[in-house]
Amino acid sequence: MHKVKVYITLKEGVLDPQGKAVQNSLHALEYDNVADVRVGKYMEVLLNDEGNLDAQVDEMCDRLLANPVIEDYSYMIEEVS
Amino acid sequence: MHKVKVYITLKEGVLDPQGKAVQNSLHALEYDNVADVRVGKYMEVLLNDEGNLDAQVDEMCDRLLANPVIEDYSYMIEEVS
Repeated sequence: MHKVKVYITLKEGVLDPQGKAVQNSLHALEYDNVADVRVGKYMEVLLNDEGNLDAQVDEMCDRLLANPVIEDYSYMIEEVS
Repeated sequence: MHKVKVYITLKEGVLDPQGKAVQNSLHALEYDNVADVRVGKYMEVLLNDEGNLDAQVDEMCDRLLANPVIEDYSYMIEEVS
């Protein structure tokens, strides 16, 4: 069994209003050294070993987990017992 | 200047209906080897160097970015130019 950690971020240049809201809140809390915030998603997918996991995860990201038009994704696969 | 990558996950035992929905969708797409999905958040915070960044990030997570009652967080600080 493997655990896949998937990181999904907005592509550079795509506006991130949620990130801006977080940044404004951090400024309101007087963290004045915050220069930028971008918000993305993080998923942990537990997979039973079956076929080519790399290819499966790529396909899952393209078809469901990420929106390839505006988002980039990366992932790490690690073995779990 | 440093970039902080913050990973926020639900604590073990906290129900994750969003993760279950993603899992069901993956099953509907015939990825039958998906055993579990947990959805979290991922943020990239760009910080100007000023004081103890580690302490600042811990405080930001506790006060705003994560909900310490139901979420865990971890982060990585890396230098950027």
